[in-house]
Order: sequence, then C-alpha cells, then structure tokens
Amino acid sequence: MNQTEIQNLEKAFMDFVHKIEHYEEAIGLIDWDLHTKAPKKGRAQRSEVMGTLSEQAFNMMISPEMKDYLERLSDPDVKGKVSIITQKTVEYYQKEYERNHRIPGERYRAFKVAAANAGDAWEDAKKNDDFSLFLPHLKKIIAFKKEFLQYWGYDEHPYDTLLDEYEPGMTVKILDEVFAKLRGQLVELLQQVMDSPHRPDTDFIFQKFDARRQEAFHYVVLKAMGYDFDAGRLDETVHPFATGLNPGDVRVTTKYDEGDFRTSVFGTIHEGGHALYEQNIAPELIGTTMCTGTSYGIHESQSLFWENIVARNRYFWEHFYPELRKLNPDQFDGISLDQFYRGINVVQPSLIRIEADELTYCLHVMVRYEIEKALITDQIKAEDLPQIWNDKMEEYLGVRPDSDREGVLQDVHWSMGDFGYFPSYALGYIYSAQLKRAMDRDIPDFDQKLARGELSPIREWLTDKVHRHGKMKKPIEILQDVTGEGVNPQHLVDYLTEKYRNVYKLS
Amino acid sequence: MNQTEIQNLEKAFMDFVHKIEHYEEAIGLIDWDLHTKAPKKGRAQRSEVMGTLSEQAFNMMISPEMKDYLERLSDPDVKGKVSIITQKTVEYYQKEYERNHRIPGERYRAFKVAAANAGDAWEDAKKNDDFSLFLPHLKKIIAFKKEFLQYWGYDEHPYDTLLDEYEPGMTVKILDEVFAKLRGQLVELLQQVMDSPHRPDTDFIFQKFDARRQEAFHYVVLKAMGYDFDAGRLDETVHPFATGLNPGDVRVTTKYDEGDFRTSVFGTIHEGGHALYEQNIAPELIGTTMCTGTSYGIHESQSLFWENIVARNRYFWEHFYPELRKLNPDQFDGISLDQFYRGINVVQPSLIRIEADELTYCLHVMVRYEIEKALITDQIKAEDLPQIWNDKMEEYLGVRPDSDREGVLQDVHWSMGDFGYFPSYALGYIYSAQLKRAMDRDIPDFDQKLARGELSPIREWLTDKVHRHGKMKKPIEILQDVTGEGVNPQHLVDYLTEKYRNVYKLS
Repeated sequence: MNQTEIQNLEKAFMDFVHKIEHYEEAIGLIDWDLHTKAPKKGRAQRSEVMGTLSEQAFNMMISPEMKDYLERLSDPDVKGKVSIITQKTVEYYQKEYERNHRIPGERYRAFKVAAANAGDAWEDAKKNDDFSLFLPHLKKIIAFKKEFLQYWGYDEHPYDTLLDEYEPGMTVKILDEVFAKLRGQLVELLQQVMDSPHRPDTDFIFQKFDARRQEAFHYVVLKAMGYDFDAGRLDETVHPFATGLNPGDVRVTTKYDEGDFRTSVFGTIHEGGHALYEQNIAPELIGTTMCTGTSYGIHESQSLFWENIVARNRYFWEHFYPELRKLNPDQFDGISLDQFYRGINVVQPSLIRIEADELTYCLHVMVRYEIEKALITDQIKAEDLPQIWNDKMEEYLGVRPDSDREGVLQDVHWSMGDFGYFPSYALGYIYSAQLKRAMDRDIPDFDQKLARGELSPIREWLTDKVHRHGKMKKPIEILQDVTGEGVNPQHLVDYLTEKYRNVYKLS
Repeated sequence: MNQTEIQNLEKAFMDFVHKIEHYEEAIGLIDWDLHTKAPKKGRAQRSEVMGTLSEQAFNMMISPEMKDYLERLSDPDVKGKVSIITQKTVEYYQKEYERNHRIPGERYRAFKVAAANAGDAWEDAKKNDDFSLFLPHLKKIIAFKKEFLQYWGYDEHPYDTLLDEYEPGMTVKILDEVFAKLRGQLVELLQQVMDSPHRPDTDFIFQKFDARRQEAFHYVVLKAMGYDFDAGRLDETVHPFATGLNPGDVRVTTKYDEGDFRTSVFGTIHEGGHALYEQNIAPELIGTTMCTGTSYGIHESQSLFWENIVARNRYFWEHFYPELRKLNPDQFDGISLDQFYRGINVVQPSLIRIEADELTYCLHVMVRYEIEKALITDQIKAEDLPQIWNDKMEEYLGVRPDSDREGVLQDVHWSMGDFGYFPSYALGYIYSAQLKRAMDRDIPDFDQKLARGELSPIREWLTDKVHRHGKMKKPIEILQDVTGEGVNPQHLVDYLTEKYRNVYKLS
C-alpha cells in the first residue's frame, strides 16, 4: 500500500470505530437517565432500546469488517505508518475481537436485556428487602457469565478472564497473594484501633443535615477540585456513579442521607475524582476509543485519592470545615476541627461497603471477591448467598447484617453482570497510596496546600501523570512510570498506620 | 407462502422495524437531554452521536432488506393474512421508503449533524440577539431542504412535499384557501376587539410569581388532566416541548417567566395535552411504529384543546383559580374570577407566537407559512429574513419587533429543518374547535364539569376518539369519523366570536 492508501485505510477504520463510540455514548446517556430521571413505567421498553444499541455496537466490534481492518492494519508494512492513537486503537480492538467474536450477537443482546431487567429487579428487591425478587435475575446473570466464559476460555483460573476485563493483567494468583498480605496487616491494625481507649466522638455526624444544603456544599467542593460544571452536572440517584459520556459531559450522581452527611459528602468527592479523570483526558483523544480511563483500578485510584487521601486529611478540613459549618451551624456547635477530623475518620466495622471507613473497606471487597470466585466455579449456589454473605461478613469484619438490604443486596454490580469488578476497588486503594507516595516528591507541601483550599496543583499533577493519557497507557505502565514499581500494598498499610496512630492515638 | 412462512415473515419484519423504533427512542432521549440537562461542552460530540444513530435508523429504512420485506408483504396473497398493525406498518414504511431511498445516507447524516449544530447556534444567536450567528447555519439547513426536494420531487408545489411530511394530504392549494378565509374573519374580529372600550385589566398578570411556585401549580393541573407522573416528568427548557419516548415515558418541558405566569401555566397545559396523546395510545401498539400521534396537526389539536378550549374557559378557573391564588396570594388580591378570566383572554397583537392569544395566533403561523413558501422557491433570501419578518408582522398583526430575538429568532423549528411544520399549528387550532363541536354532543355539561375540576371525562373522550388509535388512523379519518366533516375553519371562527363577544362585551 502506498502512503495515500494507508491514510485512507486509517481514516476508514477510525470512522468505523468512532461509530462504535457513538453507540457507547448513547448507551451511557440512557444508563444515566435510567438511574436518575426516567419514569418507571417507561423502563421496560427502554431496556429493549439498550439491547438494540448494545447489540449494534457489539456486532460492529466482531464484524467481518472489523476483522478485515484489524488484519490490514496489523500488516508489518502498515503498522508503523499510522498514528500512535490508531496503533493503540487497533491493539484494543484486537483484544476485544479475540474476546468477543465467539459470543453470538443474539446471546449478547439477551444478556444486556437481562441485565437491564435485573437492575430493575435489584432496585425492587433492595427496596422491599426481599432477595427472592432478585434471585431469578441473578441466576440468569451468573448463567450468562458462565456461558460466556466457555466461549472465552481461560489459562489458570476462569476468574482471571473476568478480572482481565476490568484490570488487564490481573490474576487470581496475584490477588490471592496481595489480599492475603493486606488482610493480615489490616486485621492487625484494626485490632489495635478497636482496642484503643481513644474513640472519636461521632454523635455530631448523625444530626439532621438537609439534603439541599449538603448539595450546596458539593458545588463548592467540586468546583475547588477543578470539576467543570460546564462539562458536567450533579444529580441524585440510588447508587452513586460518575459517567464520562465524553470529556465535555462527565456527570456525577450522589445519594443523600439526611441523617449522615458523610454519605453524600464523601460519595460526591469520590465520584468527582472519577469525573476529573474523564474531564481531563487530552483533547486529541476526544471521540476516539482511547478517550476513557485505562482500567477500573486506575479509575478507582482517582476517586479514592480524592475521597480519602485528600478529603479525609485533617488539612483539607482546615479550609472546608468552616464552609460545611455555615450550611448547618447547629450540627457542629462546639465541635472543634480536631474532633471533626477524628470523627470522620472513625473506624467501625460495618455493613455497607460504600459507607465503610478506609481501614475496613478492603475487607468488604475481599468478601465479594471470595464469593465471586466461588460462584463462578460452582462452589456455592446463588440461593445460599444471603447466608454465605452474612457468614463471611462476620468472619472478615466481625459484623452480621440483619437484612439482605444491608447485606447481599447492597451493591448494584451483580445485576449488571460485573463479576471481576470488585477487586478493582481494593486495587484502587492500593494504587492511590502508591500515587500519594510519588506525589510527595513533587508536592512536598501537600498538607499546606490543602489547608489553603488550593487543590489545583493536585488535580494538575494527577492530570499530568494519569488523566491525560486516557487508555494510551496500560495500568501497569502508569504505575511503573509514576511510582517506579508494580502493585505494592505496603504503601497503603503505611499510610493507614500513620493515619490511625494519629486518630486513635496509638502508641 | 404457507401460514407458518407468512407468520415468520411478519415477525421478522416487525422485529426489524422495532429496531428502527429503538433508535428513534434513543434519539428522542438524547434530544430531550440536549434541551434540558446536557452540559454545553459535551454537545458538539453529542451531535455526532445523534448523527450516527439517525443515519443508522435512516439506513435501515431505505435498506435492501426493507425493500425486500415491503415487496413480500405487499404481495396480494400475503397482505390480508397479516395483522392490521402489520398492514399499517407496511403502508407507513412504503411511503417512507418512497420518500427517502433517493437521499444518500451520507447526506442525511450530514443534515442531522448540521441541524444539531444549528440548534446550538440558534440558542446562542437568540441569547445574544444576533441573527448573524444563526444565518450561516440556517442557509445550510435551507440548502439541505432544497437538495432533498430535488430527490423527492413534487406535483403542484414544492412546498406540498414538505407539508405532507407533517400533515399527510395537506397542500398549498388547500391551505391558501383555508388561511385566506380564516385571515379575513380573524382580522375583522380583531378589529372589533381592538375597537371595544371594554379592555380587560391585565396588570395583575405581570406581578412577580416565583418559578418554583408556578411549578407547584403545574403538578396540580397536570395530575387533574390525567397526566401520569409515573410515566413522565416535568423539566425546564428554553423552548417548551413534550416528547413521547414510549407511552410509559412521555416528558413535558416548560419555560418559566417570573414576570408573566401565563408563559409556563399555559405552556405546560399545552405540552400536557401533547403528552396525554402519547401516554394514552392503546397498549397493543407499544413498541410498534404506530405508537405515536398520527400527524402534527392532530397532535396540535390536542395541545390546543387543553390550552385554549379547556384552560382559557371561565369554568376551568372556577375550580383552579383558588389553587393558583394560594400559591401567590398578593398577586391576585382583589382580582375577581371574572377579572381573572377576562385578563387571561386579553387580545393583544404581539411579537412572540408561543405567547400569542387565541385570536392572533393563527396570524403568526401565516407569517411563517408565507416566508417558508418563499424561501423554498427562492423568492426571498435568508439574509433578508429579519427585514421580511418584521415587515410581515407589521402587515398581519400591526406590530414590529425591535429585536431579532423577539422576531425571526424566536422559534427553534428552522434550526431543526422543520419547514412545512408551522401550518400544523394553525390546523391544530382549526381541528380543536371541530373536536369541541363534536364533544358537545357527548358531554353537554362540559362547562359544569370544568367548574368541578372534573377533567377525566374530557381526557377519556379524547383518548377514545383520538389518542388510542395512534397512527392507525390517518388525520383525515379521525376528523371524518369524529366530526363528520373535513377541514373546516368556521367552527374556530364561531368559537372565537362567541368567546370575545363575552370577554370584550361586543354587541
């Protein structure tokens, strides 16, 4: 092929994949709408719409046309002559093609419809605290995942194939080791914390805080973080999420609890962290397949960086505590900054993952990880999940749910078929502490900046090291380039040890 | 073909067209979002998404697969053996196929992208009162329409082809005659009204009425009308619209003017009338192509029926005026029901169509009709529109805009390429008066029902006669079946004459 032919081929391929991205963006918007604005009677029909769009995107991904593009663009004579974005896009779709072309389109579509219906059933089941409403849907979803695993195959462990979808390169072998190491140290630290006589006062947390006033605070904090409201918005939902439709439209959702402002305050900052990633991808990647976060784990490192490392830092509240107090003055009457800081960092083994403290969070993830591995390999049955869930919670965290709403029904993920996703949450934790260690070299006055409410340098550092690259770098490349090492849970343990030594006055 | 083969063919065809409907529903949602929730920086990319989905739906509509289905299902041996819904669906797509298969997909896609961008430009232009920001986009849209007319062809007048898209069977010949007749009588009645010494008091209208309190009233009225909030929602926008994504999700939008409650009160009832049509289509039509209003004119007859014939009726306010007063008591202090009724029915030739009174409304439409006919046939140039618009307004209504924002930039429609649409507004007017005449036979105590806030029988009558049929009956069939005659503007003139005799105490 001569230069012009290569250019034409490259353009045709990129136009083709941009259309796939268009379908994905439409699906993202419909999904946001279903979780925030859509009236309930229209949802069944909307699931059909989702099914059709997903099938179309999927069909394009596994089409003979795609196969032909990938073959021609992999030709050694062509490969080096297209842009680096095109090269990475080809790599991405080669992997997707390999993964998916064996799944019949009709099965994929049926899965998407089932997942949309399961999402509705999950909401009902959670609302009515009735696992049986969700069970038949969950069984379908699990059956689909196992069917798909037969199409995909696996090397060492079937769960590796699921992990790889969210965190490329991650395996049961690595996770078992990292989690074992982490669990041991976390449980030991947790023991010290629980034994400490210096428990923070938390009564002030549970006083009524009007939802609209909480919302007002979110606008202040999100703006300070550098979240661009001309390229996003904030809405209410049942299970908070952020969605990057394109870098000019990255939406944050949150959930309000008027009896515990932490739910929405830390939830919003968390989702804001995800949103900053999507808003700050380099402009040249807009519209391309590379224009999103590189993995779920790296994405989670961003949300957790902001939620924990920034917003659970004492210095952050030197600036923002007065703002929060203004909105609900009585609640914080007589509560010093130090009391406030210690209160929001209270450790309490509890039932709900998204409300968990930093110390116990990863233990929640490990419960789910163990269950998913066992479900996928038929070691346990979906029917027994409530019992198994409750037992594991007792074993890992020492608490036992009274209801499935606060137990096995708490998370939306399984309804969407997202098995293999939860470990990313713990990896995000681990990564965020690794990133903080690296940031300390470039921003030695991190705490002082927080105390002045000066968050831009932090956002800019993260944009430079992580955000702007989108999918152009693999998770492990980012980690290596920025921190100089691979997955290392020790930084998280060190960070937590230092924090709780302070909060709980450990010796 | 045997019975089983016919059944399989019918099912395959209906599955195929349902997918087209799915794309249309997704497009409808994206459009709603663009006009209500979407942050501005993401809109350019979203236009690309719209373009891809529109192209896909369009390509399916004109595909060889569609052609093949239509041919096989039109076979005399097959035709009578499929369901009536399938038969009507085949008829519909035959017409669409004839209309569209000559337009190259790429041109259609380019048009949709241009229209989305023109929508943005129109909003900017209107906001900045700067026609020049919109002009290049408008010229593109007009050029597209003229290009498409070449593909489509026409019999008597090129504008007939545009009219037919919105009101099947309507022609310049009919409209010229109906409008001439109407204009003569309206202008005569307007003269009498303007000469009357009994002008209603309207000062109370322009007192500040908090937008959120106006909104509270909308919820009361929409519920009384029978609008189902489990199958819809109310939001704010720049140019109000209702959108029926499916009968379980029919959304109303409105615009607030705190200095004139009529804008949102009558605007919401108007859009609510559209919404009732879409919410009450027969369940067996859900998901099919027949599941929407039969024409723009009939649709408009529903919105105008509620806005004018119901909500500008004195008896309606016997029930609802106390509700409205409660929300902003000072505004209506000392204003009797009679004063209120006469005030909201004031006639004042004015600049903005959507705020026009019942008497002058059709004159606004005629201005647009004359301009569109002339634009399409190159009798005028887009550059000259502000001047021409202002001249025509002076000629028809005796008022002249000071700004393009209140002149040629006021409507969104041209940005979307909706030429041929405006006449539907006047036809809706004419139809609504014809429907009222027919309703009088079945609901002789119409006024008494309004006075008791009893709106269900009215909604049920409209559902029975109009809504439930969706697209299964043509506009003229509905008109004939319900009123026993074709388009007849005399009922509108009679209705208006009686009303203004009352409001303006004409002799």
